[in-house]
Formats: sequence, structure tokens, C-alpha cells
Amino acid sequence: MHATMMYGPGDVRYEQVDDPKILKPTDAIIQLSATCVCGSDLWPYRGLSKQDGPAAMGHEYCGVVVEVGSEVRTVKPGQFVVGSFCLSDNSCPHCAFGFQSSCAQGGFMSGAQAPYARVPLADGTLVATAEMPSDDLIPHMLAVSDVLGTGWYAADAANVRAGGTVVVVGDGAVGLMGVLAASQMGAERVIAMSRHAPRQALARELGATDIVAERGDEGIARIMELTKGVGADSVLECVGMEESMQQAIGSTRPGGSIGYVGMPHGVTLDGQKLFFSQHRMLGGPAPVRRFLPDLMERVQKGMIQPGKVFDLVLPIAEVAEGYKAMDERRAIKTMLRI
Amino acid sequence: MHATMMYGPGDVRYEQVDDPKILKPTDAIIQLSATCVCGSDLWPYRGLSKQDGPAAMGHEYCGVVVEVGSEVRTVKPGQFVVGSFCLSDNSCPHCAFGFQSSCAQGGFMSGAQAPYARVPLADGTLVATAEMPSDDLIPHMLAVSDVLGTGWYAADAANVRAGGTVVVVGDGAVGLMGVLAASQMGAERVIAMSRHAPRQALARELGATDIVAERGDEGIARIMELTKGVGADSVLECVGMEESMQQAIGSTRPGGSIGYVGMPHGVTLDGQKLFFSQHRMLGGPAPVRRFLPDLMERVQKGMIQPGKVFDLVLPIAEVAEGYKAMDERRAIKTMLRI
Repeated sequence: MHATMMYGPGDVRYEQVDDPKILKPTDAIIQLSATCVCGSDLWPYRGLSKQDGPAAMGHEYCGVVVEVGSEVRTVKPGQFVVGSFCLSDNSCPHCAFGFQSSCAQGGFMSGAQAPYARVPLADGTLVATAEMPSDDLIPHMLAVSDVLGTGWYAADAANVRAGGTVVVVGDGAVGLMGVLAASQMGAERVIAMSRHAPRQALARELGATDIVAERGDEGIARIMELTKGVGADSVLECVGMEESMQQAIGSTRPGGSIGYVGMPHGVTLDGQKLFFSQHRMLGGPAPVRRFLPDLMERVQKGMIQPGKVFDLVLPIAEVAEGYKAMDERRAIKTMLRI
Repeated sequence: MHATMMYGPGDVRYEQVDDPKILKPTDAIIQLSATCVCGSDLWPYRGLSKQDGPAAMGHEYCGVVVEVGSEVRTVKPGQFVVGSFCLSDNSCPHCAFGFQSSCAQGGFMSGAQAPYARVPLADGTLVATAEMPSDDLIPHMLAVSDVLGTGWYAADAANVRAGGTVVVVGDGAVGLMGVLAASQMGAERVIAMSRHAPRQALARELGATDIVAERGDEGIARIMELTKGVGADSVLECVGMEESMQQAIGSTRPGGSIGYVGMPHGVTLDGQKLFFSQHRMLGGPAPVRRFLPDLMERVQKGMIQPGKVFDLVLPIAEVAEGYKAMDERRAIKTMLRI
């Protein structure tokens, strides 16, 4: 088959590779229904994170099981499944504690920007639906795998509560899913920080009640104005840069919570400043597996349409253009048709 | 009257000062039943934090109200009161959110190492008892004002739960009170990190189930051994140094919580390390006012004896020796009799 390989910054190729095979008895092979490009794929694409040799890209996926290893028990060929971008056995103490992204056996999915992929730890990573979802649900199911799961975790980590005031820093795909999550969790006010008109519009569609276009100190001042000088109960940091983290900290009320899911690049926190700001902080790679059954059910019931975040859909053979469009911010997120 | 003044590092004097007076209609004047020296008083004493000119020392206090300003409504002369070391109006949005240590009008108490003291924002800072407590309860009531309240907050911020596993980093007075708090909150296992035999003994008396004498990487390895490689659910960081913070981070399980109440001195946190460690962190000056009614009731009912932390009791005229003994670690915490 062909699959997506990254050879270095800016160099993504859709090329011939070996078909995936069961390597361990806990593996499953799935035929992908669709896949997509992640914001985190842009870090190596932009040369901002190191990479040794060509890498099999893709960690967001949903599809139909075609083969399982001898020890796989919870999924079987023919079932439609969604999996987390974090692999997990879903039975170790960390998984049992709801932090499957720190699974003792875990790792990260790769090679999913392809027609077929191997999913390790299939029992603990995949969740099957009772019936085959209709085609129109596929983009929404796909989004659950990472981008929605991560935005959801940001809101969960930021302790979003019904009636609360929420600020979302970052208008990328994850930030937009954070808006959706906060809205679903019953936040009364969801303030999206965004300077881009199309993203502002999508944020509103997903549940934002207010938009703040200002950034940095001006952005913080605007949040304080909107919250009568108090600050937000919950802030979702969905970027991972020093500036965005400071914006999050400056927007949060004392005793409020910050959920940070943008992988920090060059972010350093001063202990004494954190101390006096009195913020509850929790971040990390999202334990999407914890949320999968709930989120898949919300999609199936039509409660949420997270697939709206895909504003560019390409055949997978054009994956290189999918990366380029996201890198140049022409697209929020690229879905790849198989 | 005489009161405690600090002129500079190592220079504490008990000397003649003006009697405290009502300066604002929201003030109260109290006659102290007892007072004490705080670990945080040692920072300027050791020249580790700056100080401009002589300072009126003391922020832990309990006593009897002798005079109130014209706007004070909730306490009256003759009542026994305990107050938080953080002043608060207990009505602003931050106070209403339970973070009285970030009160919009607030500040820190001072001048309480003296027979009389002025308490600003008396209505929102002080809590009165229904009856005058007996003399033997005074040390315990005094401890509520800061050292217990701060240890309690550490446990609250670290999300201590019934049945949970807790590690307390730091065997100073606050750490020991953290042990008591975790035990009261129903933790199944309370691991105190301490190298000093008398403090180990007191920790056990206050509820520690295990003692770890090792520090740094060895200490972390020991915690991992005790928790079967998982780490603790909740870790109380009660020191505020880089080494102790790293020890706390290394001892916490993914998804576990760290409550840090030792004011950080020279602590810097790397965003990416925090991200992958997946710890919920909350710290700051303790909002003791939130816990005061509950803690005072526990003292009155004889459920807790936090005053055990005072292992040196001196007449207030000997306050300088009280500082010296703590500085030299001959005493855990000095209570001053009025």
C-alpha cells in the first residue's frame, strides 16, 4: 500500500510501504475510514522538533477492524472502531486512574495517514460501536480520536463547570474543540481568543459566547473587562508557547484552573509567580481513552458535530498539500479521504 | 507596650512601640492569648528575602477582642477570636470563591508578636468562638491561624481523599501539620519525608504511617518502592526549594495532585516536563479563612491537637531566642507566651 512518510521539514511523501501486519498478539489491523493531519504534525514539519530518519505519520484514526492478534478480546473483524492517539492497555494503575496517556505499557500511535494501520494494545486503545456509523458521521468520529478528545481534556483539566466562565486561548483545531467541550459541559460563558474571522465564526458555531481578538496584555485586559476584573474560572491553553501560557495565566481568577494541552515549546514557569497567582494547573497528552465512549455516543446521538473543524478535505494521495495548507494557515485542519 | 521588631538579618528586638489603635472603622484590636514564630519569618531573618527598615513581626494570632471600629459587625469586645494570617473582607468575588488569600482588599497580618495587635478587615478575617476556650486549647487555637491552616490547604490543594496515598515533603511545622491534615481527611497512607528523629516521631504521632528518610532521587526511588512503582495520589510540598519541588514532582503519580505551600525561592518549572508528568498543581498563600470555622471546631471538640507542633515555649520577651532556636533547627516552632 501507499502511506504518508515525513523525511524532514517540509518533506511529506505519500509512497509505497509494506502493508501493516500483526506483530504482537495484542495488535489489531484496521482499514481506515478517514484520517487527518494534526497540529502536532506541524512541529517536525516546521523543523521545530527533532526527527531521526523518515517517520510514518498519522495518529488520528477510525475505521473497520480487519484482523486481530490472538490475545485481542474486545474488538473483532468487521467492527467499526475509534482509538486514541495514545496507546494504552487500559488496565494498569495509571489507566485505572483515568490517565491512559501515561499508561505503563503505552506509547503513541503512528502510521495512521494510510489506508491500513496497525493498532498496538488494541483491547485497551480501541472502542467499537454497536453498529456501522453512516458516512456522514465519519468526520465526527474521526475528530474524537485526538482533536476533540484533546480539547475535551483541556476543559476537563480546567475544571469547567456548568454556569462557569471559560476562556480558550488558541483558535487552532484543538482550541475550537475546547470551545465545543466547554459549551457541552454547560459553561455559561465561553470566550474564544481569536483574530481570524473564519475561526471566530466557527468558534461561535461551536458555542463561543464572546470573541476576544486582542492578544498579550491587551488580551488579558479585555478578559478582565469582560469578567468585571475577576478573571475566568477555567482557562484552556491550547497552543503551547510562552506567550499563550502567560495569556492563560493572566486570564485566570485566583483559585481558577488552567488546562494546558498545547505541548509546551520553550515554556518556563516561575515558581513564585505561580504561587501567588493561585491557579490549579493540569496538562499533558490527553487521556482520550477515558472520554471515548462518552464522546462517541454524543456523536452518534447527533449532540455534537466536531468534524466541522475539518475545513479542507483531500484524497489521501494529496496529503502533502494537506500539511502545506495547515502550515500556511490556509486550513484549520485537513481531513484525508481514503 | 513592647513588641517584636526585626531590624535586619538575625536582629530581632522586643522593644517599646506605640500601642495599636483603631485606624479604620473596619479594624479590631485584640489582646493576644499567645503568638508564635513562623517559618516564613526566617526568610528575612536569614537575609534570604529583602526588607526595608525595621518591621513589626508576627502574623499568627488568637486572643480576645478589646475594641472594634465603628463598622465592625461580626465580632465584639470580650469575644475570643482566631484570625487568618491573610487579611480578607470575605465578601469579594475571590473570597466568595474560597480564595481569601487573594482578597481584592486583602493583605498580610503583621505586628502580632506582641501583647496587643490591630487586625484590619476584622469582620472578614476573624472568627469568634461561642465560649472562651480553656487555657489548654490556646496552643491548638493559635496553630489554626497559619501553620495548621497552611498544612490543611496543602492537603486540600493536593486533593487528598479518603483511602488515598499521600506524601508530605518537608518536616518543618507546616509539613507536620500537612501530615495531620491528610490523616484527618482519611488518607490511608501518609508518608512523611523526614531525616530527623524527633520530627519523625511527631509525624507518626500526627498520623504518618510511613517515614522516608532518603532525599532527592533516593527519596523518590523509595516512594516508588512504597507505592509499587505508581507514585502517590497526593503530594504536599511544604518547603519551597527547587530540590523539594523536584522531589514532590518525582513522587506524584500521573494524574495525581501536588499542593505547594512553601513559598518558592528560586524554583523554576519546565513546561514540557510538567506537561508529560501530568500533575495537577495548586499552590499559594493558604486561604485559611475558608477553613477556620471547621478547624476551630475540630480543636474545640478535641479531634485534633495541632499545638503539638510547638516544641519550644518562651515568654514573649525572649522572642529573639525563639527565632534563633528555629533558625538553628533546635526548635520546630516557637510559641510565645504573652
